[in-house]
Amino acid sequence: MTVHSRPARPVVLGQNQYGKAENRVVRITRDGATHHIKDLNVSVALSGDMDEVHYSGSNASVLPTDTTKNTVYAFAKEHGIESAEQFGIHLARHFVTSQEPIHRARIRIEEYAWERIETSDEPRHSFVRKGQETRLTQVTYDGERWEVVSGLKDLTVLNSTNSEFWGYVKDKYTTLKEAYDRILATSVSGRWRFGWSDDAQQMPDWETSYEQARTHMLRAFAETYSLSLQQTLYQMGARIIENRDEIDEVRFSLPNSHHFLVDLEPFGLKNDTPDGAVYFAADRPYGLIEATVLRDGCEPRIPVDLTNL
Amino acid sequence: MTVHSRPARPVVLGQNQYGKAENRVVRITRDGATHHIKDLNVSVALSGDMDEVHYSGSNASVLPTDTTKNTVYAFAKEHGIESAEQFGIHLARHFVTSQEPIHRARIRIEEYAWERIETSDEPRHSFVRKGQETRLTQVTYDGERWEVVSGLKDLTVLNSTNSEFWGYVKDKYTTLKEAYDRILATSVSGRWRFGWSDDAQQMPDWETSYEQARTHMLRAFAETYSLSLQQTLYQMGARIIENRDEIDEVRFSLPNSHHFLVDLEPFGLKNDTPDGAVYFAADRPYGLIEATVLRDGCEPRIPVDLTNL
Amino acid sequence: MTVHSRPARPVVLGQNQYGKAENRVVRITRDGATHHIKDLNVSVALSGDMDEVHYSGSNASVLPTDTTKNTVYAFAKEHGIESAEQFGIHLARHFVTSQEPIHRARIRIEEYAWERIETSDEPRHSFVRKGQETRLTQVTYDGERWEVVSGLKDLTVLNSTNSEFWGYVKDKYTTLKEAYDRILATSVSGRWRFGWSDDAQQMPDWETSYEQARTHMLRAFAETYSLSLQQTLYQMGARIIENRDEIDEVRFSLPNSHHFLVDLEPFGLKNDTPDGAVYFAADRPYGLIEATVLRDGCEPRIPVDLTNL
Amino acid sequence: MTVHSRPARPVVLGQNQYGKAENRVVRITRDGATHHIKDLNVSVALSGDMDEVHYSGSNASVLPTDTTKNTVYAFAKEHGIESAEQFGIHLARHFVTSQEPIHRARIRIEEYAWERIETSDEPRHSFVRKGQETRLTQVTYDGERWEVVSGLKDLTVLNSTNSEFWGYVKDKYTTLKEAYDRILATSVSGRWRFGWSDDAQQMPDWETSYEQARTHMLRAFAETYSLSLQQTLYQMGARIIENRDEIDEVRFSLPNSHHFLVDLEPFGLKNDTPDGAVYFAADRPYGLIEATVLRDGCEPRIPVDLTNL
Repeated sequence: MTVHSRPARPVVLGQNQYGKAENRVVRITRDGATHHIKDLNVSVALSGDMDEVHYSGSNASVLPTDTTKNTVYAFAKEHGIESAEQFGIHLARHFVTSQEPIHRARIRIEEYAWERIETSDEPRHSFVRKGQETRLTQVTYDGERWEVVSGLKDLTVLNSTNSEFWGYVKDKYTTLKEAYDRILATSVSGRWRFGWSDDAQQMPDWETSYEQARTHMLRAFAETYSLSLQQTLYQMGARIIENRDEIDEVRFSLPNSHHFLVDLEPFGLKNDTPDGAVYFAADRPYGLIEATVLRDGCEPRIPVDLTNL
Repeated sequence: MTVHSRPARPVVLGQNQYGKAENRVVRITRDGATHHIKDLNVSVALSGDMDEVHYSGSNASVLPTDTTKNTVYAFAKEHGIESAEQFGIHLARHFVTSQEPIHRARIRIEEYAWERIETSDEPRHSFVRKGQETRLTQVTYDGERWEVVSGLKDLTVLNSTNSEFWGYVKDKYTTLKEAYDRILATSVSGRWRFGWSDDAQQMPDWETSYEQARTHMLRAFAETYSLSLQQTLYQMGARIIENRDEIDEVRFSLPNSHHFLVDLEPFGLKNDTPDGAVYFAADRPYGLIEATVLRDGCEPRIPVDLTNL
Repeated sequence: MTVHSRPARPVVLGQNQYGKAENRVVRITRDGATHHIKDLNVSVALSGDMDEVHYSGSNASVLPTDTTKNTVYAFAKEHGIESAEQFGIHLARHFVTSQEPIHRARIRIEEYAWERIETSDEPRHSFVRKGQETRLTQVTYDGERWEVVSGLKDLTVLNSTNSEFWGYVKDKYTTLKEAYDRILATSVSGRWRFGWSDDAQQMPDWETSYEQARTHMLRAFAETYSLSLQQTLYQMGARIIENRDEIDEVRFSLPNSHHFLVDLEPFGLKNDTPDGAVYFAADRPYGLIEATVLRDGCEPRIPVDLTNL
Repeated sequence: MTVHSRPARPVVLGQNQYGKAENRVVRITRDGATHHIKDLNVSVALSGDMDEVHYSGSNASVLPTDTTKNTVYAFAKEHGIESAEQFGIHLARHFVTSQEPIHRARIRIEEYAWERIETSDEPRHSFVRKGQETRLTQVTYDGERWEVVSGLKDLTVLNSTNSEFWGYVKDKYTTLKEAYDRILATSVSGRWRFGWSDDAQQMPDWETSYEQARTHMLRAFAETYSLSLQQTLYQMGARIIENRDEIDEVRFSLPNSHHFLVDLEPFGLKNDTPDGAVYFAADRPYGLIEATVLRDGCEPRIPVDLTNL
């Protein structure tokens, strides 16, 4: 039993969590000469009956972060890594059910994709990292209810036409000229929340779900004739929800990566002709468009700011 | 009046916001030969009656992000930059009160500190960037209520003694040895929320408040004999709240930047003697300790994940 | 005529260069509904008769860096971007031949690859950035002789077997255990120099050369049974030189990205079995293996340190 | 004895080096309750008789990179860290003199500065990282001759006046307007080479030398009325050489960090008045000015590209 020794002063502890962040786990399985690779970055955050360690420094309820690291590696061996989501579920369940003071576990995982290097040789154990998006998942469990949010970051996409921007509000600080054919480019950061929340329900096929959500999102980006990045964002989210029954909510954070048509008239050149338009790709500032798209009737649960998921 | 043309499909828009992010503003004022510098990175996020731009691409309610950028620069000239907080208040009030469709504005600012280069010359217009923490503020306004959260990130601190860690829970995955004299190091990411929320109240002195909060926090870090990083975190937050009446809530995200004593016994050397102990400063993984500390009776309002504030 | 006003003090100017760095150029060409994209980051460095600007601040021989930027964009329009190498050759020739004080131009280019987003639609103007390696080229011209060095950085590769490390020197600080089956992983930074150096010679087909050099290098990495990363490096370079007549010299900088087999015995688990071996992917420190490989009889000209090419 | 088995093919090995990079070493010494800290990042690169490991994979001449790491930590204990330069000298001498196949050692060190957190307490063991420049040194030894190059990177400085730029060459691509009062800002990357090259000579006082070189450089930046960044660069280098007898050569790489005066006329505002001028701090592109400054009669030996020193 923990004796609470909280001092009688008017400063109290609020929400808190702790754990080991960024455990880099690589798992190789061998199917004869053909190897398979899973490459994850796993972060553990535990919450529960942790007042005393904050007030007095007593660690009597604290499972060390070093132990959470060891557990990640041991579970990668014992349970394998079928998918990042499934691995997170194993870990979250373990922490919540094995240690009384822990009431909630949140497992965040980044996954890096690899593809095979093609050679004439039979042994297949050589890989090159794909390097496009980083796949993400976050599994949260409080002993009763599951919440699984997956997604990706750093997927850079560009439409070289079919984007306009006009008809907007103009005030005294407005100097922007309307655009009827512009580049639309962004680096997608997206998250989607699964309806699955209970052990009694059938679990989604996490790998298929990711591949399909990504494909629908990319196609919506490519196929939308865009009057604003907000419209494109909504279409990207709606396409996922319409096509994937297991997903109830999608949130995107989309920087508008400005490509400015360069003024070449001082040099006697007409830019923006079919044989070649030349753009300056700017760094900062950038527009930033963020929104949640929901299956009708569902509660929003993905945090508004995505950076740290 | 906006005509909503939302399609009759079961995907609806949730929370959303947009604006220009990372406007880099430098302002120089001249007091004779003595110059002063303010160096900010300002991000604008606006919310309001924006359904239609997502559903149909109509920009009739959209003030362009380019206009929000222009406004930042014009306001830096017109109103000056007394403090990041005061500048954010000017901007947020403007966006909410000047454009009907905008119901909420959130201004995030990073501030970079400079100090003077000492020379024998009289003219004082030369600066070197301090390079320690980045100062942060976020001002949110919905037309009625203000919320100001300030703080910092990337302030790296270290105690070379007066830190222990023992008496923790041990399970089958625990191999960590107890420590009775270790290095405690972290890179502080902290936010503190002001009680000020109403134009009728007296505003805090934002500059003094920052300097004092920073000083109290650093002293608490240095003066706490630490039995766990959680205990140190609580003391850092409590010290701010106890000493600064204008601050009601503090949240920290503190990586435990591990410094491992190197095993030099294979080389016939005894490490950890007063004439010099040698440590390996590790990158990943790291412990991550996060908590909110509150003035008793106050509601927590700072988001749990701090990365993107 | 420039009057040299160099002060009679014992400090002289040595090698120097200047220009505009990191001009981000995107060029879109339209072939009906099918668009093509080139995405470059171009840096210009000019040298020549520039003593006076350093000694007295006279800019009479200085073409502004802003002008070099404008030239990059104008040339992207006028000459197109057939390849990064060809574009660099156009620019370098222009600077050296058009301005008398400029005696040497060095153009460095990073190129980012994009692939098409597959959709059912006919219009083909949607792209996703590949995100693997960044392609590099450096063109140097002094009015007589050309030097073209191309290559790549940040191509991450991994062999999950066929790597050993044993039979090395052991001194009193050696504790490493010999390894007979380890992961070999690296992030390739490579440069290769072309024999082409004279306008009278036939130019290589730069695009084919890059694709082929990359393929040969990857296959050598995959197919070499490795007793040390040095051996693999040599094979990667030799394979390029043996297969590509246009390339005379190759230099690699290869971090040995350590993957340590996790000790799971404390948890009663045997790691490194065919059904799954679990590794910790470490950040720092890392081995760093660097070498030049040359066609016999050729002079080495690629600098030893590659980071900044 | 090594049997050379180099294949009779026309690809030969050129310059090469290997070692463990980025060993993060923190050393704490205790002087009663007052502690001192040294915080380094040490990279080892060894060269010598290493053909065979490249050609055949034989490691018979290879001291493992892991051993070089162990040596760094053991030497930090045994020899202490008086200065980064002295520590590098100890290491380089050891590698070259203790292992026959090693003919040259290059030790690169980054040093991070800390300052004390001021508290009322007596024990002095609390530090905050300064966060301005990173101090650098590189020690090279071939058994006979020493070369020591020190310097810094990421020191950001700004003059808010006393900078002009006009009188430059104008060609058909020139659109830049002349400037008679502009901000001059840069992030200094500098290296300086010591004359000391022989054990028989008196060694410089490395710590004093660094502090003094930095101070002279900063003052030259602040006190130079600048007609071009090249002129400022030359003054910064000349001031070091004139004041520090132990330094023979200085090289700088100085990005011209553009601060553009914002055009506020569309909003009825006159910018650039004494009560406040507002600038946009741009990211890319940037001018890049690089040059070597030499004591008359000395040979240049610092590489032209500084990034990786």
